[in-house]
Amino acid sequence: LLARLSEIVGARNVAVDPAEMAGYLQEPRDLYHGAALCVVKPESVDQVSRVLALCNEIGAAVVPQGGNTGLVGGQTPDSSGSQIVLSLQKLNSIREIDPASDTMTVEAGVTLARVQEAAESVDRYFPLSLAAEGSCTIGGNLSTNAGGVHVVAYGSARDLTLGVEAVLADGRIVSGLSKLRKDNTGYDLSHLFVGAEGTLGVITAATLKLFARPRARATAFVALADLGKAFDLFALAKADAGAALQAFEIIPRVALDLVLRHASSVRDPLSNMHPWYALIEFASFKDEPLDGAAELLAKAIQSDIARDAVLAASLQQRAVFWRLREFIPEAQTREGGSIKHDISVPLACVPAFVEEASRLVETLIPGARPVPFGHMGDGNIHFNVTQPVGADKQSFLARWGEVSEIVHRLVKKYQGSISAEHGIGQLKRDLLRTTKDPVSLDVMRTIKNALDPKGILNPGKLL
Amino acid sequence: LLARLSEIVGARNVAVDPAEMAGYLQEPRDLYHGAALCVVKPESVDQVSRVLALCNEIGAAVVPQGGNTGLVGGQTPDSSGSQIVLSLQKLNSIREIDPASDTMTVEAGVTLARVQEAAESVDRYFPLSLAAEGSCTIGGNLSTNAGGVHVVAYGSARDLTLGVEAVLADGRIVSGLSKLRKDNTGYDLSHLFVGAEGTLGVITAATLKLFARPRARATAFVALADLGKAFDLFALAKADAGAALQAFEIIPRVALDLVLRHASSVRDPLSNMHPWYALIEFASFKDEPLDGAAELLAKAIQSDIARDAVLAASLQQRAVFWRLREFIPEAQTREGGSIKHDISVPLACVPAFVEEASRLVETLIPGARPVPFGHMGDGNIHFNVTQPVGADKQSFLARWGEVSEIVHRLVKKYQGSISAEHGIGQLKRDLLRTTKDPVSLDVMRTIKNALDPKGILNPGKLL
Repeated sequence: LLARLSEIVGARNVAVDPAEMAGYLQEPRDLYHGAALCVVKPESVDQVSRVLALCNEIGAAVVPQGGNTGLVGGQTPDSSGSQIVLSLQKLNSIREIDPASDTMTVEAGVTLARVQEAAESVDRYFPLSLAAEGSCTIGGNLSTNAGGVHVVAYGSARDLTLGVEAVLADGRIVSGLSKLRKDNTGYDLSHLFVGAEGTLGVITAATLKLFARPRARATAFVALADLGKAFDLFALAKADAGAALQAFEIIPRVALDLVLRHASSVRDPLSNMHPWYALIEFASFKDEPLDGAAELLAKAIQSDIARDAVLAASLQQRAVFWRLREFIPEAQTREGGSIKHDISVPLACVPAFVEEASRLVETLIPGARPVPFGHMGDGNIHFNVTQPVGADKQSFLARWGEVSEIVHRLVKKYQGSISAEHGIGQLKRDLLRTTKDPVSLDVMRTIKNALDPKGILNPGKLL
Repeated sequence: LLARLSEIVGARNVAVDPAEMAGYLQEPRDLYHGAALCVVKPESVDQVSRVLALCNEIGAAVVPQGGNTGLVGGQTPDSSGSQIVLSLQKLNSIREIDPASDTMTVEAGVTLARVQEAAESVDRYFPLSLAAEGSCTIGGNLSTNAGGVHVVAYGSARDLTLGVEAVLADGRIVSGLSKLRKDNTGYDLSHLFVGAEGTLGVITAATLKLFARPRARATAFVALADLGKAFDLFALAKADAGAALQAFEIIPRVALDLVLRHASSVRDPLSNMHPWYALIEFASFKDEPLDGAAELLAKAIQSDIARDAVLAASLQQRAVFWRLREFIPEAQTREGGSIKHDISVPLACVPAFVEEASRLVETLIPGARPVPFGHMGDGNIHFNVTQPVGADKQSFLARWGEVSEIVHRLVKKYQGSISAEHGIGQLKRDLLRTTKDPVSLDVMRTIKNALDPKGILNPGKLL
């Protein structure tokens, strides 16, 4: 097999050396460590096609991988040592930028940051943005339907995609690239590959939507008495700004404290302490400052929705506001053990969910610190729980299952999702079985079996 | 079979009388006339489930139908008289409106107009809008992934859907209703049923997105020297207004002439004649008029993009502008024979496509009048051709195939779509076979066979 793979991609693109493979076999949270027969790095779609045809012929399992930044182990092979990691990193050309049609066609291995920069280079905007953007790849973003901070205005990776090129388990290439905004010619196969975590096909390229570049942004850090007020502020901002509302993130005081303790060169933007904060951002497409944001904040304070607020006065201050938000996971790591959940509930249920989940977790583990933060504008809360001060990290983390059971039971009560933006991978595969509509699960299995009858594509993930 | 169907839905909901069935057996353009064993009108999802289970058991073909306004014969049974029309019209309750979460859950048979009104009743906006909105149903809108005039800002029906409930061929119910903005728990089955024209399952209900209601609108009728200028105006408006640009429609002079000739109480909004017009609309979410629109038009005239422009001064004038656009198909019908195409090309290719297609058609049939109009903001042009003045309608229409071949060959050259928003149905089924990527077609067939192995769901449509 190794010889035949080398024939297809060249010997330099087949790694078997443990040191060379190491970076592909564990994931950023250190939850999964896999083994592999080899790591194959095709340089063209044709090579991907031939690699898959070969693996399908002999029944070898293939684990597609992009930037290896996924948080649920979807990109990590199992421990058998018989699986093949298919790295898409060398498929990294930007095939075309068409600013007139507002589209860009990129290969799977292009990093998200490069896509953003390429859009900017033609005075356009690609809004997908998340913490790992420097190393995650667009193929991984699409395979996991990545979210991030601008979903409230632009949708998830799925919504930014006009069409994909994907290689099926048997090596056939689905040529679905398209610059069209409207195309009602049958089942939307691109939407099927997006979010399928590499279990139905390997996305090798995509045509993405580009947007008008915002000319000015207003970024506000707003203090709130409770999460109910955050919801009121969100409703106000949405009614007032429509699609100009680009981000709406919530930060509890405990998260701000952790960031202030562990991050360098940051300080509380407000003089008093408050229980909750919202980080909100508005865009303008005119070459002028945004007066509306200041008016909106004044209205929020007058009507007793916000307790205090500050608008970023410079790009630098804007960056500081965002750093307060983006540093939260890192600050939690530095503070000790953290039990993480990536959940969503209907927008209106966010305050009740957070209040109830926090109470239950604090009852289960006295001293545990719920740190619910994130994308309130999408109903997507990272309900993370930091260990009690001074507790033993490992014994705290050993209770992950108990804590998650409480949180996910509540998610079910609110008809929410156990994975809002990170996907299922290995981490939530068994949980999916007990939470998803059984008929939907069965339809998923039917489709999987029809498209990948030998089960070579990312086995053990998702389903 | 009829007896068992009557047991499920009640005898009053099984029509067999030819007079009673007539309205379900032909479609609005009078291109297809079908026959049916009966028309079944279930009143609940459970009844739909039992009807399908029965039909699947005995292998009876089922043709789902909503408001019967589709334009490609997807909702019309074949002429055998053995198929069963499944009308969803009695599944017409609005199950829930949740303005706080910005969602609405409606059953398939609710008309689009009722959905719009229900949204407005809670101070929200549902942007899907098209000529048939008074009678088309949301189930049909989703099954055909309907487009309309606001796609440029809000996307097609697909993009407005958070989740669907659908009944499979064997009667099982996929419970995919969801108010969640983010949910990465497996394959997106809702996106599979949307646009599948009832061939994979019958959509019985959907949870839809609601949006902030625009507080003010600015509607402009703009005169242009050629389509290239229309594209320049579109680029200018998009860069300037971002998502506040709600519609961008183009109208050639020939279309305006036809409307002025055949519609009552309309007049040319401008004093001079011009080759092309754009009907554009901006929204504001503030309670104040939109100054930006006037500035934009002034800029367009100064920079020689627009020749003239008028902003609607009242809601009544706005309605008149829209009537000039919406009346075009009717005016074409009154003028005689019309050969119709619903195509899309990449945005930047619209001017070249229209110019080239018009030239080819005029060469093929001297005197034929191309009337290309519609959704330029989506690259979606209704490339309709009106018969030469005084020609015989039937002999003109007899050349439909020849004209379409030219038009669709050009669509292929520009990597466009032969069906931008109307779907495939019967009208374009054979054409699809020769224009779609063969691997994609094969994957579609594989999915169809896996989910509907007996082929009872809308056979002969799409695939």
